[in-house]
Amino acid sequence: MARQMHLGLFILGTGSHVAGWRYPGAVDSFQDMAAIRAIAREAERGRFDMIFMGDNLYADPGAHPSYTVRLEPLTMLAALAGSTTHIGLGATVATTYSDPFTVARAFASLDHISGGRAAWNAVTGASPQAAPNFGKLHPNHAERYAIAGEFVDVVRGLWDCWADDAIVADRATGVYVDPARLRRLDHAGPHFAVQGPLNIGRSPQGRPVVLQAGGSAPGLDLAARTADVVFSVVQDFDEARAQYATLKALLPRHGRRAADVTVLPGVMPVVGRTEREAFDRLATLQGFIDSRNALQLLSDRFGTDMSAYDLDGPVPDLPLPDTYHSFSRAVLNKARREGMSLRDVYNLIAAARGHWVLCGSAETIADTLQAWFEGGAADGFNIMPPWFMEGFTDFVDLVVPILQARGLFRREYAGPMLRDQLGLARPERV
Amino acid sequence: MARQMHLGLFILGTGSHVAGWRYPGAVDSFQDMAAIRAIAREAERGRFDMIFMGDNLYADPGAHPSYTVRLEPLTMLAALAGSTTHIGLGATVATTYSDPFTVARAFASLDHISGGRAAWNAVTGASPQAAPNFGKLHPNHAERYAIAGEFVDVVRGLWDCWADDAIVADRATGVYVDPARLRRLDHAGPHFAVQGPLNIGRSPQGRPVVLQAGGSAPGLDLAARTADVVFSVVQDFDEARAQYATLKALLPRHGRRAADVTVLPGVMPVVGRTEREAFDRLATLQGFIDSRNALQLLSDRFGTDMSAYDLDGPVPDLPLPDTYHSFSRAVLNKARREGMSLRDVYNLIAAARGHWVLCGSAETIADTLQAWFEGGAADGFNIMPPWFMEGFTDFVDLVVPILQARGLFRREYAGPMLRDQLGLARPERV
Repeated sequence: MARQMHLGLFILGTGSHVAGWRYPGAVDSFQDMAAIRAIAREAERGRFDMIFMGDNLYADPGAHPSYTVRLEPLTMLAALAGSTTHIGLGATVATTYSDPFTVARAFASLDHISGGRAAWNAVTGASPQAAPNFGKLHPNHAERYAIAGEFVDVVRGLWDCWADDAIVADRATGVYVDPARLRRLDHAGPHFAVQGPLNIGRSPQGRPVVLQAGGSAPGLDLAARTADVVFSVVQDFDEARAQYATLKALLPRHGRRAADVTVLPGVMPVVGRTEREAFDRLATLQGFIDSRNALQLLSDRFGTDMSAYDLDGPVPDLPLPDTYHSFSRAVLNKARREGMSLRDVYNLIAAARGHWVLCGSAETIADTLQAWFEGGAADGFNIMPPWFMEGFTDFVDLVVPILQARGLFRREYAGPMLRDQLGLARPERV
Repeated sequence: MARQMHLGLFILGTGSHVAGWRYPGAVDSFQDMAAIRAIAREAERGRFDMIFMGDNLYADPGAHPSYTVRLEPLTMLAALAGSTTHIGLGATVATTYSDPFTVARAFASLDHISGGRAAWNAVTGASPQAAPNFGKLHPNHAERYAIAGEFVDVVRGLWDCWADDAIVADRATGVYVDPARLRRLDHAGPHFAVQGPLNIGRSPQGRPVVLQAGGSAPGLDLAARTADVVFSVVQDFDEARAQYATLKALLPRHGRRAADVTVLPGVMPVVGRTEREAFDRLATLQGFIDSRNALQLLSDRFGTDMSAYDLDGPVPDLPLPDTYHSFSRAVLNKARREGMSLRDVYNLIAAARGHWVLCGSAETIADTLQAWFEGGAADGFNIMPPWFMEGFTDFVDLVVPILQARGLFRREYAGPMLRDQLGLARPERV
């Protein structure tokens, strides 16, 4: 079979566009389980590989509504497990503000509950605003990645403590566990000491799928070593192609092949039946943007106080901040390349939080996705609908059938587990 | 309406009896979501107030199978939310090995997901065996309760950060949140510093229900101050009555009334259509017990090395251990009173882990529960079926109808939320 795309749905209840919730008829909450359930079923109808939920660890009432109040990812995805049958369920948990035993356990549990559909997005947790909610100081970028690397290793080690056949449950003899088929981890490293074994058996996928999103050098290296799927933040084809090549080139040094890691750039598709309808929709969305807090949002995003700058002036020469590395790099590169004002940058960020916006007819969108996919820039896409449901349903009903007709996307799921959709073998216990 | 009982289902996939999974036809896993879903629906058919899930934070392959491998409580209960409509969903999370922001957030999320059916069992986490999985030293009993008290206060404070009407979501004006209707917590105490606000809105119940299980003096005091429901570990009527009176007497000093706290002793009912059938079932269950590791289990439970003692000798004069305070006290009192051997104590613990075992015909069981309920020993019971499903279905089909016929138990749910079943008002935001 020819190589096919993978599609993730980045789910935010109010849509990825900051003002998507103001669109007529839009879902306006990320706390409404009935709406979230309907979105998940829509993604499954579209044969998406997975639903993916980002996270943050603080409320930011001036920001995107779904980054202000939202359901907690693991409970939300566990609730979706019973409402769906095939689609993968990916949740973000930051390594800076959790602990490996809890994370390993929760994702193994989600994998059991969903029959092998769990995925963990292992992020370091970029936002320093989280720290005061946990009584901590936010570690710097290098330290966060040092923690993350060890954290991921511990979690994978915990997932492998139990052999697949360690639970015997022999009624006749009364033997429940074969002690020879499980082991302690006995990890003792610079950041974590974890004995194990985990208190849950090896899960249907052997190990839940690991997602990552870091685009900095340490982020790419961690991904090359440990990730099954990588979300990238890019603004155009050349940048996407370069980042794709960089990541794939890193894989051999960790004994991995290009096919072992699926790279999914994030994209906000604004779909229309015609080009005109699509651009009208984008204009409607942009018209809802409130720029009163623009400099505040830019300050937060770039990690620098920008209150003294003119919103209609050029983009100043900013140092690359310690937070949002890959995100900031992509946006600043684009701004300099295109001579954007700070207001332009703000609109871009407010629209899709720095992700690629792709506006056009279904045919145009399918053509562009195909060009990226075949041009070495992507193995598929993380779809970030601007609002729900119409802003997503149109992608499912108009774009997906074109991709399917071209043989670029599945018509039926390949099997019951997320690894089946991704074409990944079940890992042997190490 | 006359006062009615409350019933919780203590869910362990393999049943509360250590060897219940060996019973013919029994569920033999606590990782099988389909079986757990069926159990939850059975409890809802029986009009139980809630399903309640204990927890532990380490695997103990020599112990009870459901304490060795199990689903993680929050993901499991979130998955049950969509399969049930009225029953409360209570999960244990230990205050010693988590953090208040995460816990407050997860239970608020579960409350949103379930439409107001979430409950948090706030335990300190008695088992020192958890510590090496978290790279920690296990705090002593007093310290654990100092941590727990502050932890519960922070969680409750976080639940109150958002006013019920703080999320405006006005499409016309673009105002999503009214900043005047939320606040930071800014807690700074000896064990936790938590800024807040929580990143999820106030939940359907205002605050999820708080459960507790500690029977020591600090445990009872914490419960009297903060719990809505208390699970007690008792062996007989007099002990239950004394503990009930002690707890209720503590309430006024915290400005609370007796009706504010529901006390549910744990009981393992072994039900038969006749007395004979019930005792035959108990004998069958006890015959499955493997006593090879008896002295090891007793050592773990009493926090003292007991390998030098004779299993058929008397119970030695043991110091009250730092762990399992209330549990150990109940068992040791009963052993001394009844002149039991260590083997007798082992059988008792192995059967129901120190909880009260009530064996008899449905009529006898209903009579006894009624006597406790009306005699000032209980507001209801935490039912711990020895195995599933039959060991529970018989309680639902044989005992519950007798209680209903006597007007002692509801025939229909009082409302959509757990607070409705418990007769608790929705708390005002403090």
